[in-house]
Amino acid sequence: MRPSGRKTDQMRKISFERNFSKHAEGSCLVKFGETHVLCTASLEEKTPPWLRNSGKGWVTAEYGMLPRATGDRMRREAATGKQGGRTQEIQRLIGRSLRAVVDLEALGEKQITIDCDVIQADGGTRTAAITGGFIALHDCLKWMEARNMVKVDKVLKDHVAAISCGIFAGQSVIDLDYLEDSAAETDANFVMTGSGGIVEVQGTAEGKPFSREEFLTLLDLATAGTAELVAMQKAVIAGQ
Amino acid sequence: MRPSGRKTDQMRKISFERNFSKHAEGSCLVKFGETHVLCTASLEEKTPPWLRNSGKGWVTAEYGMLPRATGDRMRREAATGKQGGRTQEIQRLIGRSLRAVVDLEALGEKQITIDCDVIQADGGTRTAAITGGFIALHDCLKWMEARNMVKVDKVLKDHVAAISCGIFAGQSVIDLDYLEDSAAETDANFVMTGSGGIVEVQGTAEGKPFSREEFLTLLDLATAGTAELVAMQKAVIAGQ
Amino acid sequence: MRPSGRKTDQMRKISFERNFSKHAEGSCLVKFGETHVLCTASLEEKTPPWLRNSGKGWVTAEYGMLPRATGDRMRREAATGKQGGRTQEIQRLIGRSLRAVVDLEALGEKQITIDCDVIQADGGTRTAAITGGFIALHDCLKWMEARNMVKVDKVLKDHVAAISCGIFAGQSVIDLDYLEDSAAETDANFVMTGSGGIVEVQGTAEGKPFSREEFLTLLDLATAGTAELVAMQKAVIAGQ
Amino acid sequence: MRPSGRKTDQMRKISFERNFSKHAEGSCLVKFGETHVLCTASLEEKTPPWLRNSGKGWVTAEYGMLPRATGDRMRREAATGKQGGRTQEIQRLIGRSLRAVVDLEALGEKQITIDCDVIQADGGTRTAAITGGFIALHDCLKWMEARNMVKVDKVLKDHVAAISCGIFAGQSVIDLDYLEDSAAETDANFVMTGSGGIVEVQGTAEGKPFSREEFLTLLDLATAGTAELVAMQKAVIAGQ
Amino acid sequence: MRPSGRKTDQMRKISFERNFSKHAEGSCLVKFGETHVLCTASLEEKTPPWLRNSGKGWVTAEYGMLPRATGDRMRREAATGKQGGRTQEIQRLIGRSLRAVVDLEALGEKQITIDCDVIQADGGTRTAAITGGFIALHDCLKWMEARNMVKVDKVLKDHVAAISCGIFAGQSVIDLDYLEDSAAETDANFVMTGSGGIVEVQGTAEGKPFSREEFLTLLDLATAGTAELVAMQKAVIAGQ
Amino acid sequence: MRPSGRKTDQMRKISFERNFSKHAEGSCLVKFGETHVLCTASLEEKTPPWLRNSGKGWVTAEYGMLPRATGDRMRREAATGKQGGRTQEIQRLIGRSLRAVVDLEALGEKQITIDCDVIQADGGTRTAAITGGFIALHDCLKWMEARNMVKVDKVLKDHVAAISCGIFAGQSVIDLDYLEDSAAETDANFVMTGSGGIVEVQGTAEGKPFSREEFLTLLDLATAGTAELVAMQKAVIAGQ
Repeated sequence: MRPSGRKTDQMRKISFERNFSKHAEGSCLVKFGETHVLCTASLEEKTPPWLRNSGKGWVTAEYGMLPRATGDRMRREAATGKQGGRTQEIQRLIGRSLRAVVDLEALGEKQITIDCDVIQADGGTRTAAITGGFIALHDCLKWMEARNMVKVDKVLKDHVAAISCGIFAGQSVIDLDYLEDSAAETDANFVMTGSGGIVEVQGTAEGKPFSREEFLTLLDLATAGTAELVAMQKAVIAGQ
Repeated sequence: MRPSGRKTDQMRKISFERNFSKHAEGSCLVKFGETHVLCTASLEEKTPPWLRNSGKGWVTAEYGMLPRATGDRMRREAATGKQGGRTQEIQRLIGRSLRAVVDLEALGEKQITIDCDVIQADGGTRTAAITGGFIALHDCLKWMEARNMVKVDKVLKDHVAAISCGIFAGQSVIDLDYLEDSAAETDANFVMTGSGGIVEVQGTAEGKPFSREEFLTLLDLATAGTAELVAMQKAVIAGQ
Repeated sequence: MRPSGRKTDQMRKISFERNFSKHAEGSCLVKFGETHVLCTASLEEKTPPWLRNSGKGWVTAEYGMLPRATGDRMRREAATGKQGGRTQEIQRLIGRSLRAVVDLEALGEKQITIDCDVIQADGGTRTAAITGGFIALHDCLKWMEARNMVKVDKVLKDHVAAISCGIFAGQSVIDLDYLEDSAAETDANFVMTGSGGIVEVQGTAEGKPFSREEFLTLLDLATAGTAELVAMQKAVIAGQ
Repeated sequence: MRPSGRKTDQMRKISFERNFSKHAEGSCLVKFGETHVLCTASLEEKTPPWLRNSGKGWVTAEYGMLPRATGDRMRREAATGKQGGRTQEIQRLIGRSLRAVVDLEALGEKQITIDCDVIQADGGTRTAAITGGFIALHDCLKWMEARNMVKVDKVLKDHVAAISCGIFAGQSVIDLDYLEDSAAETDANFVMTGSGGIVEVQGTAEGKPFSREEFLTLLDLATAGTAELVAMQKAVIAGQ
Repeated sequence: MRPSGRKTDQMRKISFERNFSKHAEGSCLVKFGETHVLCTASLEEKTPPWLRNSGKGWVTAEYGMLPRATGDRMRREAATGKQGGRTQEIQRLIGRSLRAVVDLEALGEKQITIDCDVIQADGGTRTAAITGGFIALHDCLKWMEARNMVKVDKVLKDHVAAISCGIFAGQSVIDLDYLEDSAAETDANFVMTGSGGIVEVQGTAEGKPFSREEFLTLLDLATAGTAELVAMQKAVIAGQ
Repeated sequence: MRPSGRKTDQMRKISFERNFSKHAEGSCLVKFGETHVLCTASLEEKTPPWLRNSGKGWVTAEYGMLPRATGDRMRREAATGKQGGRTQEIQRLIGRSLRAVVDLEALGEKQITIDCDVIQADGGTRTAAITGGFIALHDCLKWMEARNMVKVDKVLKDHVAAISCGIFAGQSVIDLDYLEDSAAETDANFVMTGSGGIVEVQGTAEGKPFSREEFLTLLDLATAGTAELVAMQKAVIAGQ
């Protein structure tokens, strides 16, 4: 029995609020239950130094948590003077995941930065950030298309969405909340495309090692879950 | 004529959304028009070193902006490795302003941190942060009162609210939005209590110096405006 | 009764020692009683990035305290690895105050940095820095005029001087020393021009809030005091 | 055809040189072909703050590269002033992987730090670090056992080893060197125990997404490879 | 011929102004010609962690330059975020040199910090800092003696003074000013005690290597020069 | 009697392993007994800003220690966020020493960075780094000569080597190991050229000051020792 009463293959209530941000070229407040992440896409003309004059653009991500997004207040990273290892690991993952579905040549020499700021945390912030970040990225490209800068369909090769799965109380479950996450024996994050390809797999045994079979049950849950998320993304995009 | 069409003594539409944050002991999303600031109050048992064994508590504030709260994306301070001068100046102001109405002995040896994070900026973020931060602080004390830790009425000596005024296009106006702020000749922030006392005054000539008379028109606008804000705070608090 | 025996409207003994520094284009050791600040003006050909090719120059300030300028030794900011919030707040104030009387176009694409280093502190270091920094700035421009780079009268639109006022032991007093400053109920800094315009006003209630009337007594003291300081500046400049 | 001429399931020449370091309680220079990593284990009496008085110990890891371990000289992180995201990601992985086979209660309130410094890099430094780090950890525990501080068999629950696999030129291959790594379509790292359990799985599509089937071929290669590595570890430990 | 017209064995005009600083327990503004260094001694009850409960005290030094102490303005180290290599090298040298004549047990568990801040630089700032720092240290101990905390004669085992020598235009000269320093072929700093013992020797070939004989001429110059400096220190302490 | 049983003028067993590093243009693992330093030379096309368009090149050095190179684990400087004072002092010394024998014009507008990383420390790491760094530098120039970029004989004006000497247990000894170093009364480092010129002399009294005569015995030991080291360098270079 899951603490939330959900079934093992049941994700939390998920919603996307587009155009949350007045200033950003694309933005989306994504909610996976009590996990709320604000994703904004910012377009800049400059690219990283190593892409100068390459004809290619870049998509990158930054991740942050408000100090009281969590049960106990965490020290503000700006006050600490550096981004912690966890933050850097997550923002590298978000960036790689989104770039997996972007044709950087079709984007041209521009950079889009996806800022993912956790307003409230209840487990699964990185997967929510990827899933919602895709909407912000899409809407930024739409904004550019309206100005004849790109064709969305040329730049975006596919959808991308992410979900966490894990073994909790001996059972494989999807979309762990904080209570489950902190007690899980195994914790895995999956990033998958609309066509079912795998972009990233990260599995960690928190307690005892897991087996090939256990891992496959998690992969199956994630395959179904990300398919559902991609369907939601499509509905959201179509709906406006 | 103001860009927004407001009258010179007319503040923007102001709202307070309490309990915005699942985890914080007190929280409030305050909106002054398109300026949105999330204020959370976090209770900690520890106090700063210089208050150890003094019997007194402490109220402090931290301030941050999401990178795309603004028209152009600003670099994330956590990535820069330090909080800029403006950030430090603002968070010191918020802390001093809230402490002006707190009896630190009645609070006892505890610390309350008010985090003010700007979700969207359109001028006047620091005054919104003080005005909304007061609600978060109040609700945190209420939370403590419910646990017999303090008496709210003993700790909070008064209300406190803040508003910006300035000289824009030759006229004294209240509650400047970004368009006005960036073109104002004089820009001033006032922090005042419910009983009309002045806690902080900060006036800056952006262009030519201002006169004693001009300054007094700003002070008059602010006196009326903060009185109105305090009335709203009282209604919000009573409403529950 | 003031600890120093001064009258409420009496400033400390004030002196300006020009050309204190062999290397700087302009320099002044300013003393307000036991508060001693060395102000140097350094001319550089470069301007900040945002002014490139604008035809405009820039005046900026940096502020520091020697570790033992104070009663207790303070940690050296260079060793700490960052400038504290108070330092940044003060150097921003000094820079804004001096720019208020400078025609940046008449200066041309150059930058003048005013370094204000507190050799000994006894209250009022920021106002001494502004008042003495003006002399250093003037002398730097004089140095430039001698080389046909600018006309001093074109660049400097007016004088600027600053003084602190406060409510100490129930009385409004001018030019607080450290003993008064640390016990004052209200503390305010005023920056005013030679023609009596106000450039900056910063008032803070340290204890109970202050009233409009109280604030006006401080403003009146400051108006008289800065007029006196400007007269001294003129005498100093004329005297050479 | 692999650049090195190896078969798809053939790892590079692997060697372990124990007691490489005069001072460390345990140490091992591990070589996977031209990738050379020096792993040292340092015993300290202190534990992290959150474990004080818990009766539990801690195993942690730090990772670094000599500036010229790589084809182009990389900037020294100590000179840069911070550890990059990649470094932090890797050292967190090494620490988690080793802790997966350690009984922290049996270790008692002590901390063992495994420093993994890459002397020369040619792909697969993190997996070499884990595999060699296990030997350093083992030898440190042996050192402690000789002083009656722990029983090695109580603290070490199993072996742990790691290997990279990837899809290179359309084929699933094991133990990628730099040439393969930089051209691989998919890159995955596997950390597994002596009894075949999975501790960590990290797979990344560098180009196009990969399929469930492709991933399983990599997992199969890794299962065989880590079994072989564990056998080598056992031989090394037995052999001396 | 030296630029200043001095003879090869002639030091610049040297002066010591004691009690320069109102707050410090000991202080001295030392001038070697146009090189002016303010040395303050600050007494603190705490000692470094490694001396806790050892019964021994500590003497340490910090060194800084005002940004416009030099011909071109140097970036403020507090703004840069770190002390440069040169600064650290110099302050380590000053601390070692002063400790060489201090009996740390006789001092007891206290720390004296000697801050050496260069107000104006014209070569030889580190040797001036050591020579003047000794006076500040002495006066701090005198202050302590007046409070029955130590006996000066027990703590101070000897005098210590320092001077630079170098080979300029083919000749061995003493007390190089900036013009000489920047053109010298060899540059050496000597720290010697009142009884003629050597505490520190640092010689550097700026151009071609120097010989044993050349080095000995510098040592001879320094031996005479530091003897003269020690005589001045004694006169200052006795007389003034 | 020395702890190692060596005679007073006997250096430890010294060896040079060239081409230790697959990637570097020149490299050498130098061993002075149990002190092992890996020196790599990296060629870069860029020069420091102040040499742009000067026709001159630059040779610089960086120094680091692996955390467990020492008896107790030292904190990793990359984790600390800065290079300590000792590190900076040493790497400045290495750079100056090597530049003393390089004709920077003959090198042309290129930079060679000598990284000296201490794999294991037992006293004398800086002198080993200079002595071994020379070999790495030589081999890098040889690599360049093979590509017709420079003539080794034009760039390298002489050999350079370094050795520590000190007064231990009342006797002047050469090449102190850690046991001697930590108990020495006087500690000195000498950097000398193949033709016997002195490049750097650094002598420090750890306990009581030393005399001119004592210093000369150290200089004599060093003169003989560095001559021996230069002979070894020549043999090593010739031997290939």
